[in-house]
Amino acid sequence: MTKQGKYVGLDVGGTTMKAAVVTDAGVPLSKPVVMDTNPERGQDEGLETMCETIRRAIGAANLTLADITAIGVATPGLMDIKAGLILDPPNLKPWKNVPVRDHIAKVFGKPTAYQNDANAAAYGEFWVGAARDAKSMVLFTLGTGVGGGIILGDVIVEGEHSHGGELGHMRIAMPDTGRQCGCGARGCLEAYASATNVVKRAREDMACWRGPASKLRDYYTATDDDFTAKVIFQHAAEGDELALKVVDDTAYYLALGACAAMATVDPEMIVFGGGMVGAGEWFRSKIDIYAKRYGLPFPTKKVKIAFASLGSDAGFIGTAGCAKLLMQKKV
Amino acid sequence: MTKQGKYVGLDVGGTTMKAAVVTDAGVPLSKPVVMDTNPERGQDEGLETMCETIRRAIGAANLTLADITAIGVATPGLMDIKAGLILDPPNLKPWKNVPVRDHIAKVFGKPTAYQNDANAAAYGEFWVGAARDAKSMVLFTLGTGVGGGIILGDVIVEGEHSHGGELGHMRIAMPDTGRQCGCGARGCLEAYASATNVVKRAREDMACWRGPASKLRDYYTATDDDFTAKVIFQHAAEGDELALKVVDDTAYYLALGACAAMATVDPEMIVFGGGMVGAGEWFRSKIDIYAKRYGLPFPTKKVKIAFASLGSDAGFIGTAGCAKLLMQKKV
Repeated sequence: MTKQGKYVGLDVGGTTMKAAVVTDAGVPLSKPVVMDTNPERGQDEGLETMCETIRRAIGAANLTLADITAIGVATPGLMDIKAGLILDPPNLKPWKNVPVRDHIAKVFGKPTAYQNDANAAAYGEFWVGAARDAKSMVLFTLGTGVGGGIILGDVIVEGEHSHGGELGHMRIAMPDTGRQCGCGARGCLEAYASATNVVKRAREDMACWRGPASKLRDYYTATDDDFTAKVIFQHAAEGDELALKVVDDTAYYLALGACAAMATVDPEMIVFGGGMVGAGEWFRSKIDIYAKRYGLPFPTKKVKIAFASLGSDAGFIGTAGCAKLLMQKKV
Repeated sequence: MTKQGKYVGLDVGGTTMKAAVVTDAGVPLSKPVVMDTNPERGQDEGLETMCETIRRAIGAANLTLADITAIGVATPGLMDIKAGLILDPPNLKPWKNVPVRDHIAKVFGKPTAYQNDANAAAYGEFWVGAARDAKSMVLFTLGTGVGGGIILGDVIVEGEHSHGGELGHMRIAMPDTGRQCGCGARGCLEAYASATNVVKRAREDMACWRGPASKLRDYYTATDDDFTAKVIFQHAAEGDELALKVVDDTAYYLALGACAAMATVDPEMIVFGGGMVGAGEWFRSKIDIYAKRYGLPFPTKKVKIAFASLGSDAGFIGTAGCAKLLMQKKV
């Protein structure tokens, strides 16, 4: 009997990091172990926390290091994927030039894969999530920002400068008329469709709304903490017309992102993940309708637009998948 | 001594088709053989013309069929690349569902690769052209339309529905404000930056020009046959300010296309080909400046923006390259 592979997936974020051991079939052997990242304590402590999270994940699966085939680590950019380096990501300050892949490989004596966190999450959805039956996929993740990843067969599109799949910074409008993005540019998809910008647009729409009375007006003086994308989607689901306009516009903008993905890599599936997809099918179908209206006729007829299925587990599962992929390439 | 591979590349267009035998090193062994496509005579005659063009190309290289390792064929879309089928391309009417790959493989008894013509040209520039030293590349071809191809390592991004690299139909503006494209949509890059649309924009700019006197006004009543993108670029090179505005806008629009390529696949190089690149370095540097201004800071600092170097030979050379790639995958 062939020994089945077991892979640790470690997903490092600005606030917490998560890890679990995942089988060859993409099944986690425990709930993820979660530890605080505390980047402000410096990168040496950060590296040690990563190792400790990996150790605890192996323990949580009732395994020992000898049972582990390979390890995967994912971090947010900026990074140099090929070199295995964290460069200087805004949400891991003050870390700089951290040789994360080689450090973990050395500490554990295991082959170690390194990947961008959004690409890893995309690979998770591709491997065992919403796109598990697809041969190619583009994932858009909708959160404070808009991230993404592109998977073509067994190729994760990392990009030559580790910036592949920066889908939130695809432009959907010209710089002269486009909305201001947090990245400094104008017209980026993120400036329209991130949760933060859904709220911003709602405030703007509120200020010029001429339709029927809207309960969203009650949020006129709310802070952004209280006035969230979730609130807007809930009002929309209840039929509030102003909220519906905001959601409808969001679907339209996301569809334009989907159309750009189709015109460049023409994937079998386009998957959306993140908090907003909790809205469910009525929101998905809006995106689908606009994508079919504004995309190239031939591929849009066939592309499948779906919502992610792994939730926040996509990160560590996909990262473990990158470790599996690494071993396949070594064969 | 290992026998060197020899590959026939056949590039089929709406008006003519071209073929030549190309070596393992990407060197054509003769000038390309050119025959008229005459699609209106039907697909059976079309297939026979393809075979005859291949035979003559082998003859032109002073070789026999026994010397040939494999054959590559490229056609314009619509197509089903994986199935080896020409579907119903607008410029090969009335052809429909032509099993071109299997027909040629059967007639010659050789492994036969099939590819989209723009992807094949991209592969040509990647293999032995402007991007020969790069590990990944996006090509934009500027002609009557805007086409393209994406090469990531040895992967030609065909797309799941044979629509990968439809870069002319990436949107650079929203549908509500974007220019009308020939494809029926609005806001496509092609609607701004194809040779046809450069002339259209020049006519529009002419109608509202408030700058200094412009010699372009002499073309006010010219037909589009006389008033070409080439004329506009020549006037721009001579300092005509209206023409310079049109060229400058063109560079800006192409840079927005380059930025979209960077945000999706982040290639090592972005290459522009087609008639307009005859304008040379001053035009390339305009695109480069705008791409650096409007792209994501990190990859734009490093991406190389260049003009294609194979001219119209990129098609048959790249198609031969696809045949070589097919043999590598078989090993």
